[in-house]
Amino acid sequence: MDVGRVIGNVWATKKDENLNGQKLLAIKILLDKEHERDGFVVASDIVGAGVGDLVLISHGGGARHAVGNSKAPIDSAVVGIVDSIEVLDYE
Amino acid sequence: MDVGRVIGNVWATKKDENLNGQKLLAIKILLDKEHERDGFVVASDIVGAGVGDLVLISHGGGARHAVGNSKAPIDSAVVGIVDSIEVLDYE
Amino acid sequence: MDVGRVIGNVWATKKDENLNGQKLLAIKILLDKEHERDGFVVASDIVGAGVGDLVLISHGGGARHAVGNSKAPIDSAVVGIVDSIEVLDYE
Amino acid sequence: MDVGRVIGNVWATKKDENLNGQKLLAIKILLDKEHERDGFVVASDIVGAGVGDLVLISHGGGARHAVGNSKAPIDSAVVGIVDSIEVLDYE
Amino acid sequence: MDVGRVIGNVWATKKDENLNGQKLLAIKILLDKEHERDGFVVASDIVGAGVGDLVLISHGGGARHAVGNSKAPIDSAVVGIVDSIEVLDYE
Repeated sequence: MDVGRVIGNVWATKKDENLNGQKLLAIKILLDKEHERDGFVVASDIVGAGVGDLVLISHGGGARHAVGNSKAPIDSAVVGIVDSIEVLDYE
Repeated sequence: MDVGRVIGNVWATKKDENLNGQKLLAIKILLDKEHERDGFVVASDIVGAGVGDLVLISHGGGARHAVGNSKAPIDSAVVGIVDSIEVLDYE
Repeated sequence: MDVGRVIGNVWATKKDENLNGQKLLAIKILLDKEHERDGFVVASDIVGAGVGDLVLISHGGGARHAVGNSKAPIDSAVVGIVDSIEVLDYE
Repeated sequence: MDVGRVIGNVWATKKDENLNGQKLLAIKILLDKEHERDGFVVASDIVGAGVGDLVLISHGGGARHAVGNSKAPIDSAVVGIVDSIEVLDYE
Repeated sequence: MDVGRVIGNVWATKKDENLNGQKLLAIKILLDKEHERDGFVVASDIVGAGVGDLVLISHGGGARHAVGNSKAPIDSAVVGIVDSIEVLDYE
C-alpha cells in the first residue's frame, strides 16, 4: 500500500455507471515526511477522508474488494485514515 | 486510477479479435495542471471520449470489468470524462 | 496498454512447459515518435508480429486472456500490430 | 518480490474493517546493500517482523493469499524475514 | 516479462509456510546488453537457474501459475533460462 495526502476531489459526470455514488479523491503519494512523489493518483474513498488527510491507499484487486464490488472499474481505494507513521531509529 | 489527456487514436487492423469494435485512445498521464508524464498509455474507451478530453483511466482487472468482459485482452480503460479536479489548499 | 517496437526474439530452451510453442519477442516501449523508454519487455506474440513492427502490448491478466490460457505463466502479450497512431492538436 | 528494511509502524484507527487486527509496517525497498529506493511502502505483516528487520515483501494477489484472505483490501504483505542475501561474483 | 541476471540467493528461515521448499533468487533486470536497472527483484525459481544465468521472469498472477499454486504468496517467478536475445537491426 501507499500513504498519501488528499489534495482534492475529482468530478466526472460522464462515467462508468459502476462509479456512480463513489467519491473520487486526488492524492499525492508521500515519499517521506517532507517530500511527495511527482503526479497524483485518483482513488475511491470508503472511509470518509477529506482534503488534507493522510490516507492509506490500496491498489489493484485489493481496492475492488475494499469498495465491496470485485467488478468495480477501479484500481485504487482509500482504505484508512492514517493517525501516525511511527518511524524509529535502528542499528 | 490516473487522470490523463487524450492525444489521439491508435489504429490496429491486425489484432486480437476480442479487441474488435473497441476504440483505442492514446493518452498522456497528467502530473499536475501544467505537466504530463513522459510517454503515453493506450486505453479502451467506454465513455465516448475524444481528443483533448481530460479522462479518468483505470488499470488492470478494473479495466476489463469496465469494458464488460473480464477476459478482454486489455489492461487500461477510460472510465470517465473528468469535469474538474478541485485541488484545495490545506494546512 | 503500451505501444512498442519489436527489436528481436528471445530464445529459452529450458522453460516452463506452458511457454512451449509461444513466440517471445523483445520490445522497446515507445515514449513518443522519436524516443523509447530505457530497457525492454518480453511479450508472447499472438498476432504474428516481426522485428521492426510497431505493436500493442497488454500486461497482467489481459495478456493471459490474449494467449487463451488464463493459467499461462506470462505477464505481457502482443495483442495487435499498430497501423498508425493519429496524434491530433487540441486547445 | 522485493527486499526491504522495516522503518516503522503505520497506525490508522479509521479504516476498512478487513484491516482490523493487521499490523501495518512502513518499509523502504532495498536497491543494494547500501542504498534504498526513494519513498516507502506499507505492508501487512504476517511473520512478526519488527523495526530494523530485513524482510521479503510480496505484492498484489500474492499478498492477499499470504494474509489468508483473498478479499483483503491490501496489495502488499511481509512474507518472510530475510536471514541473508548471498550475492556471488560470476563471469 | 523481464530478462534479468541471477546475482544470488535469498535465505529466509522465518517465512510464509507456502514459501517452504521454494528457491528464492535475487535478480537484476537487464536494460540492455551492458546495463542493468537499479535494484533487484526476488523471484521463485522453477527451472533450476543459478547465479550468472540470464533468466526470463514473469510477474503477478503469471508467477503464481508458474509455481503451480495460484494461492502462492509470490509475485515473481523465473519461468525460463534465456539462451539468447537476438536483437536485429531494422529500418
